Amino acid sequence: MGAPMAHNLLRAGFDVTVHNRTRSKEEALAAEGASRAATPAEAAADADVVVTIVSDTPDVEQVLFGPDGISQTARPGSVVVDMSTISPKATRAFGERLATSGVGFLDAPVSGGSEGAEKGTLTIMAGGETADVEKARPVLEAVGSKVTHIGPCGAGQLTKAVNQIIIGGYFLALAEGLVFGIKAGLDMDKVIEAISQGMCRSAVLEMRSGNMLADDYPLGFKLALHLKDLEIANASAQDVGVDLPLTQLVRNIEKSLADERGNEDLSVIAADIRRRAGL
Amino acid sequence: MGAPMAHNLLRAGFDVTVHNRTRSKEEALAAEGASRAATPAEAAADADVVVTIVSDTPDVEQVLFGPDGISQTARPGSVVVDMSTISPKATRAFGERLATSGVGFLDAPVSGGSEGAEKGTLTIMAGGETADVEKARPVLEAVGSKVTHIGPCGAGQLTKAVNQIIIGGYFLALAEGLVFGIKAGLDMDKVIEAISQGMCRSAVLEMRSGNMLADDYPLGFKLALHLKDLEIANASAQDVGVDLPLTQLVRNIEKSLADERGNEDLSVIAADIRRRAGL
Repeated sequence: MGAPMAHNLLRAGFDVTVHNRTRSKEEALAAEGASRAATPAEAAADADVVVTIVSDTPDVEQVLFGPDGISQTARPGSVVVDMSTISPKATRAFGERLATSGVGFLDAPVSGGSEGAEKGTLTIMAGGETADVEKARPVLEAVGSKVTHIGPCGAGQLTKAVNQIIIGGYFLALAEGLVFGIKAGLDMDKVIEAISQGMCRSAVLEMRSGNMLADDYPLGFKLALHLKDLEIANASAQDVGVDLPLTQLVRNIEKSLADERGNEDLSVIAADIRRRAGL
Repeated sequence: MGAPMAHNLLRAGFDVTVHNRTRSKEEALAAEGASRAATPAEAAADADVVVTIVSDTPDVEQVLFGPDGISQTARPGSVVVDMSTISPKATRAFGERLATSGVGFLDAPVSGGSEGAEKGTLTIMAGGETADVEKARPVLEAVGSKVTHIGPCGAGQLTKAVNQIIIGGYFLALAEGLVFGIKAGLDMDKVIEAISQGMCRSAVLEMRSGNMLADDYPLGFKLALHLKDLEIANASAQDVGVDLPLTQLVRNIEKSLADERGNEDLSVIAADIRRRAGL
């Protein structure tokens, strides 16, 4: 996700310094005019806005507070924007920790996947102080097409959890309907034509029913990443005290698929229903 | 559903004869120019196209084959169109039974609810012989805005089952995401704004998230009717040999709500998730 986002920042005229753990990934961006930094600390040293996008909560902690982390060098008055999808609770703790050095912190997870990152059409859901959102807004608007400030620090991550809960159920519901139809011998092109403009109308049906009907699941958005996001959502659900039976079911099915098919698109959840149908 | 559909047929210039078990319901349509019939048999006697829309499989059987049923009088070459949502298996048996008298039979269940019936914007999914669909098409197009001939007799009911499976999961997924967000203290208007154009984009979110946020569930489409449809879908899933764990979960939650809240909109499924959240 980071490379196409940095590319869009360069194209928008920003002065961009890049760092990746796999340093060779910096090269294409350097060729486009980015500076390279050997560590997160070096990348943050002169920045007004520092953007992180990594895999999970411990990775963000390392990039922020590790020995070569951003907190070593970030200037008071600068803003760190974490666009990873991680724990809302840890996010609030990171924000408090940075605040002691006068560094602002936003959680600004995205949806829209690699396609959205490339086209600059990501949906960004931001949590943090309004002043920090405004400092970061030009950067956010260069990488996304929809920036919404939801509330205080953590609110972005909680909103991402809402998003992932809903789409998990949508994918499974679509999979059950379509696999039932296939098994019943229906002409599925006609079924899609009949149902797609009624209450089934949805981005998931428009964009992923083709994968499910073809039993072929190119990315898209990896099942393994959605599973990671659902584990975060489930932990948050426990924290706030709500029981989500469908989300638990989706999580269990994804878990059963993850070893073999985690690198395929989330629509591969239909492979589980196909298996249950003997298809 | 029948009254607004008959109203639209009258408005389109059809010669309409109406019968309802509760005879007083015929009166408003008679005032608009409909003839009244004392029994289904009387209504069918001179008809080219006979439309039935009742609650469940035994009701259709009674209206078709009871002592005053349509099969007593329906003319060879006429077409009976059942727009109820009932068992696909029973539907095929009804079609075979009528065929012995030279009477055509279509299963043509609808989606779009009472609002769609009033506006003439129902989605109609039809199963049966092509010649019968063409005979009935002017009638279908007067009551619906989208008519799709899916396949042979029963295919319309199976498609309706696909539709009900998908929307059941969609409603529950949306309920879990929104109730989680409420319980987490998010500004839900901003959450909806942030997520509604991404992968969560859907008719269900557009049309029913308001109910779920307000914890108020005006119709719409009754939960009790969706539950009836899911029982049919589950029986069909068993017939064709596919295990649908999400659909089973939705069915169980709806069953637990049906006694107290069956007459509310299907979005009342959110009340179960609210209860699990102590809200």
